[in-house]
This record gives sequence, C-alpha cells and structure tokens, in this order.
Amino acid sequence: MSPSTYPDVMDKLVSLCKRRGFIFQSSEIYGGTGSVWDYGPLGVELKRNIKDRWWNAMVRARDDIEGLDAAILMHPRVWEASGHVAGFTDPLIDCRNCKKRFRADDPKIKGTPGTPDAQCPACGMKGTLSEPRMFNLMFKTFMGPVEDSAAVVYLRPETAQGIYVNFLNVQQSTRQKVPFGIAQIGKAFRNEITPGNFIFRTREFEQMEMQFFVDPEGDHMQWFEYWKAQRMAWHRALGLAESRLLFHQHTKEELAHYARAAFDIQFDFGGTLGFQEIEGVHHRGDFDLSRHQEYSGKKLEYFDQPNNRRYVPFVVETSVGADRTTLAVLVNGYREESVEGEAEGRTVLGIHPSLAPIKAGVFPLVKKDGMPEFAEKLSAELRKSFPVFYDESGAIGRRYRRQDEVGTPFCITVDGQTMEDGTVTVRDRDTLAQERVAADRVGGIIAERLQA
Amino acid sequence: MSPSTYPDVMDKLVSLCKRRGFIFQSSEIYGGTGSVWDYGPLGVELKRNIKDRWWNAMVRARDDIEGLDAAILMHPRVWEASGHVAGFTDPLIDCRNCKKRFRADDPKIKGTPGTPDAQCPACGMKGTLSEPRMFNLMFKTFMGPVEDSAAVVYLRPETAQGIYVNFLNVQQSTRQKVPFGIAQIGKAFRNEITPGNFIFRTREFEQMEMQFFVDPEGDHMQWFEYWKAQRMAWHRALGLAESRLLFHQHTKEELAHYARAAFDIQFDFGGTLGFQEIEGVHHRGDFDLSRHQEYSGKKLEYFDQPNNRRYVPFVVETSVGADRTTLAVLVNGYREESVEGEAEGRTVLGIHPSLAPIKAGVFPLVKKDGMPEFAEKLSAELRKSFPVFYDESGAIGRRYRRQDEVGTPFCITVDGQTMEDGTVTVRDRDTLAQERVAADRVGGIIAERLQA
Repeated sequence: MSPSTYPDVMDKLVSLCKRRGFIFQSSEIYGGTGSVWDYGPLGVELKRNIKDRWWNAMVRARDDIEGLDAAILMHPRVWEASGHVAGFTDPLIDCRNCKKRFRADDPKIKGTPGTPDAQCPACGMKGTLSEPRMFNLMFKTFMGPVEDSAAVVYLRPETAQGIYVNFLNVQQSTRQKVPFGIAQIGKAFRNEITPGNFIFRTREFEQMEMQFFVDPEGDHMQWFEYWKAQRMAWHRALGLAESRLLFHQHTKEELAHYARAAFDIQFDFGGTLGFQEIEGVHHRGDFDLSRHQEYSGKKLEYFDQPNNRRYVPFVVETSVGADRTTLAVLVNGYREESVEGEAEGRTVLGIHPSLAPIKAGVFPLVKKDGMPEFAEKLSAELRKSFPVFYDESGAIGRRYRRQDEVGTPFCITVDGQTMEDGTVTVRDRDTLAQERVAADRVGGIIAERLQA
Repeated sequence: MSPSTYPDVMDKLVSLCKRRGFIFQSSEIYGGTGSVWDYGPLGVELKRNIKDRWWNAMVRARDDIEGLDAAILMHPRVWEASGHVAGFTDPLIDCRNCKKRFRADDPKIKGTPGTPDAQCPACGMKGTLSEPRMFNLMFKTFMGPVEDSAAVVYLRPETAQGIYVNFLNVQQSTRQKVPFGIAQIGKAFRNEITPGNFIFRTREFEQMEMQFFVDPEGDHMQWFEYWKAQRMAWHRALGLAESRLLFHQHTKEELAHYARAAFDIQFDFGGTLGFQEIEGVHHRGDFDLSRHQEYSGKKLEYFDQPNNRRYVPFVVETSVGADRTTLAVLVNGYREESVEGEAEGRTVLGIHPSLAPIKAGVFPLVKKDGMPEFAEKLSAELRKSFPVFYDESGAIGRRYRRQDEVGTPFCITVDGQTMEDGTVTVRDRDTLAQERVAADRVGGIIAERLQA
C-alpha cells in the first residue's frame, strides 16, 4: 500500500463534526465511552440519506432482492455454526501479578511473554507475563435471570447470519426463485482491542449487507463480477472520487478457506490512514448455509421445481459499513479554499446534494422591511418538501459560510428586490453562482436539482 | 380495565405474519430465541413506513425538533444517574438446593418463600426457597478485554438517556432556543422475566422517543397538553380506530416520584390482552437533567440570553414503541369477511395505504397474448415510484386474495382489452370497486391516492 496523496483531514473533521452537530463522542459528559459515537442532528440525517440510498438501490428498485430486519440477539448456536465462537479472536497477554491485559503486539512489552525475562509494562514485574492467549471479540451477555454459561448470548458481530438462518423463511414467504438476494441494515458489535480513527473502527457500528443466492452449477462467477461492478458504481454515484476508490483482491493468505473469491472496495481516507476497506464483495460458496444445516439439523436447501433439483445455493455477499461510508463521504467532501476578493477563505463540505442534511438555507438579507416574515413563510413552505434551515443572525456572508461547511447545496436570500417583485436569489454552494428566480418557483427548481 | 369488545386475533396474526413474511421467530431453525423476533420482507417495510411517518412528523416537518441517533452502549454512570442500576428491578426467588430461579409471583410456588414450609416448584424440596430478591432487568456486558466489574456496560433499556446526556451538544450545535425538542429512533433491551404476546413485550425492541425542553417558569403544562393532543392525533392518522384508543392517566401510585403528570396512550389489542400502553406522554420535570448534572459534575443548564437567565429546563417526553405500534396497526387492520356471490370469504389487512408494504399488485389476466410482457413492463415502470408486486401464478381471484391479506391497497390487471386500447383495471382493496384507466395514468392515480 503506497501512502496517500490526499491530506489528512481527520482532526479537522472531528472538530467540525462536534461543533456543527454531525457526530459527538458517546456519553461525553461522563468522559466518553471507548470508541462509541453518537450521531447529532446533521449526522443522523446524513447517515439516513446514505442508508436510504442503499435500501432504495438494493431493495426497493429491484424485484430480485427482499429486505429483512433480524434481531441483534440471536441463538448462541448461530455463532458456533458461523465459526465466530472458535475463530473470531485476537491474541492477548496477561500479567499474573497485576492482572492487567495487553495485546500480544503491544510495543510497550519488553522481552518474550511466557519467558522469565519478559517485563510487564504496567506493574514492572519480570516473568509474570503469560504466553499469548486468544480473546474472543464478541460481546457476551446473559438472557434470563441466571448468569451462567447456559444463559450466554452474544451481540451479533455481523448482520449476515440473520440472513442465512432466515433463508428459507424469506424464500418461501415471498416465493422468490434463485437467483435472488436478501438485504439488511442493522447494528453489529465487536469488542475491538484497538479501535480508532473516529468512526472508522468502532465497537458499535452499522452494516448494510446483502446476500445473493445463486445456483452452484450456474453462472455464479458472473454474478460475483456483476455485484463487484454494481457496488463500485454505487460508491461512485455517492460522489466519492474515482481516484480515491480501488478494488483490493484478497491474496491467498487473506482469503477465508471456504471463499472462492473476495474483493474489498477501498477508499483513500488521506494521510497515513490511506486506502482502507469500506465494503467487501465476497463469494462465500455454500459455507454458511451448509454450516447452519449441520448445526441446526434443518435442511436449508432450495427446491428448483422446473428441474426437480434440490441444492444448497452459493452466496455472493456485499457488505458495506454505514459508518465508514459516512466517514468516506465526509472526508471526500471536505475542502478549504480561498475566495476571490475575500481575505478569509471558506470550508466546504462538498457532498452530493441528495446526501446533504439540509437542502437549502433561507435568509432575509436584513432583519427589517418585511424580509424576515417573507423568508420565514418561504422556509415553512419549502420544509414540506425537504429539510431547510432558516437563519437571520449575523452578516449574510457568515450565514453562507455556515451552510457551506455543513454541505447545504443551496442558499436562498430574500432581499429588497424580493419585496418589490417577489424574486429571490439562489446561491450554489460549489460554483458560488447566484441566480434570481421567482420565490414560488424556487421549491421546484431545487427539487429538480436534488434529483440530478 | 373492562375486557375488550374486540375479538382476539393474535394467533391468526402470528400465523399470517410468518406465512407471508412479516415477522419470523428469531433464530427459528435453532428453536428460537426467547421473545426476540425478526422482521421479514413485508414486516421490515411496514415498520419502516411507520418509523418514517414518525420521523417526518416529529423531525423533518418541524423547525423546533432536532434528530439524534445515540449509541446503544453508553457510559455505565448514565444508568446510575437515571436510577436504572438501583431501581429497574423485578423480585425473584432462588432455590438453594437446585439453584433455579422464579418470579416472586409465580403461581407454582407453594407456601411463603423464606419460610420452612415453602416448596420449590422445580426440585420439590421444602424450606429451600429464598426470600424475594431484586433482579435488574438491564442486559450487561463487558467492554474491553477484562471481564470484571470495572468493565461492565449495559445495553440501554431506553433511548431517552442518550438525548439527556447530549442536551447541550445538540442545543449549542444547532443554536436552538427553548422550547425545543430532540427526537430519536433506536433499539433498546430489557431482560424481561415474562415477555410475551408476540411483538408486544420483547427483550429487544425499538423506541421512538422525543424529549421536549421547556422553561420551568413558563407554560410547561400547556406544552404537556399540546403533546398529548399531538400524539393521539398521530395514532389516529395512522388509521387506528378511535374506539380502540384512550388516554390512561397515571394514578398517584403509578406516577414516578419526580413526574408532574403522566398519561399513557392505550390501544385495545382485543381479547384478554385488551387495552395496553403503546405510548407514554410524561411531564418529567427537571429530574433527568438534574441527575446527570449531579452524577457527571457538568452543568446542563440552558442560557436564556435575552433574559440573562440560566436554568435546567423541564422535560415533556413522548415515548412510543415502534414494535407495539406495528402490532397495533396489524391488529387494527386484520379482518375476515364474506364476499357477495363467493363461497369463500377473504382475509384483509385493512391498513392505511401509506403504511402498506406493497402499494400495488400487477397481474396479467392470463399467461398469454402478450399480457405478461405488458404487465411486467408496467410493473417495472411503477416500481420506480413505489413498491409493487408482479404475480402471474394462479387464478386471478386467488392473486387478489393474496394481496388483500398483506394489505396491498390496489391491484392492477392487464386483460384482453388492455391489448386493444391500453387500459387496465384498478381494483380497490376495501371497496372491491374496479375502474378502468389508461395504463400510463395508473402510476399517477395511485401516487395521488397514497398521499390522501
């Protein structure tokens, strides 16, 4: 991986996101919760817009994909079948003296853990560090009144298993025929030892996953190629720069033993973080359904009626992080630029208009001569169609800047001429061009541009 | 509470919901997970439509309410401040012999627990039952590598606290002025001892909560009355029958010690379940913000600039269950009726067209003469605007019935006349009236009726 040619804007984004209400640290007044974040008023709308775009593209616009919303708490056997109980682990080292734990690759550890010369980085004792032991990344809890091993359930570490265990329920209730898919948006949880990079790797996150079921004797590799292309096109349509997106093919070492092929879609987050996975498109063969057949004792076969054939389908999975995509959209859109003829520059969130939390700012030029009343009425009218923000405080230039940095694509100003002829100015966030249009046409014009 | 005059349709609904893909038992192939449910293809759309209606009414249509999406995992001190660690409990009884646990009100227990004559319903021993002890209903888990008391975090038992701890973050980033509200949709978890009644009381559920912050020296009681009326109107606009909705005022015994007034909106689920809470509208005073001030040591005061006054606002809360509302919509809509001139009756899900998972069925009358091609093309065209279902299998009457029982408001049939003059029939789910309209006008007509 070569270092990124894009600048590192993460610290600036974290600050902007807090100040303007995109993303707050969770439980901040209590000192925060480790690597968990809350979406504020603008962040929740941005993320909703991204999730809705995915749902519309993957479910509502197609007749071969069904939606699902499976629960976070699942039967514990699910995670034995999936391999998470045995294999979803990181190596950790214990100190027998002070009982602290460390990642096996913690650079503060001196010497070889498990030998007499290794020194604990916390209490300083020698020879007390254990050999590395595997630590499971699933959060566990207890269901029912008794906290014993029989009551253990896990917070799902991925949404995909909810789709697999419901494969026949969905297929039979919808009468879908293979090939078809099941799609789901939902929270997942991983007790990461070293989370970080803002909302890139968090302990609580949201996935948008689709499992596409195909005939193992049919054109499954073509479907794999189809989904690779579809998903890359989706990210580009979000407005992510082509130069920041690439496919990373899993090497033999990276590839899961059951996988037939796997590509990640990576996005260049800039700075030292650089290219990182935002989505995986994986050909998983019949591993998942076969394992659930084995562990549940229930058949998960598809019956191909015309050919009188029963089989366990192959699965092509597309799995994208809603939080990572939100971060990619923010990073991709963030820019600082100088403005001709002005001493101060501006910060712009150049995000796709369809994703912008606020579609239009509405301003009276000054707080008199009926302009606030006109602007407030216009604002209320436009709010019936899309989110708008009414602002009458401060100089007009400052109000434009406030909308620029939260990505509002249009600003509408009510001025002296409005009071004479009913026209307003519409300013474009990116070109800074202002055009004068009749106030009663402005809603239609903006709605049209949001579709484009 | 008088028994319901409406019939008990729950068993029939559970069966319909599984068969048609509204709601499945979670992890069914493994024998299920206790009182946790998965939403299937039709259920996820129905619930999304309900949640979107709430979000649009409470956030997007207003300029005085901001959205939020706080995390499920919060700092554990949050639940000390809220009172959940100390008080969110149910009484349980242990058997010292067999280690089993029982609810204190379990009718199988004979004698007085804690005395020598009490008999364990599981092992049959006498004198082994403990006195009732309080059991906390929060799910707990451990964050980080060490499973000790310092690492305990809880799955939130309600979303409201995420709003309180973010009160100043939201207020300052949006520059809102009191009175204003913060609204959130999200999952919450309660380790209920006796959950049940399908999706009425579950261990994992979804809330739609709004906290409205008001001046304690102002017209807070008027705001309370305002929100009572608004929320009742919202349920009625969903199509819930007026005769099935009522306000239940909390008695002195029910009222929390800090609450100034509290009303529940109850819905009549029929049968023995009868009237049950689906929403709470509660005047919580300054209890929550004051407690978080105390426990966090951080001021949570609003600064009223014009009057140079600082105060902790009062809170009017509206809290509605997304799953309970979904169940209410299903129960309210379910009906079986006879059809004039037909031997078999029909089952109808008479839900509001805007909530229906599928807006239109599209059928070729017969599978020949170009009708399937015409109908598939029309179906693809309509799908750009709203969810449709194409169906060519079985007799036309059977296809109508299949759409009736999932609440599809319109069915469009392509027949012989279509091939001559380009008109189709549009059948209304409720009136059964069929009108003939030009195929290229049908999308506009249905879109219009969905708005109504």
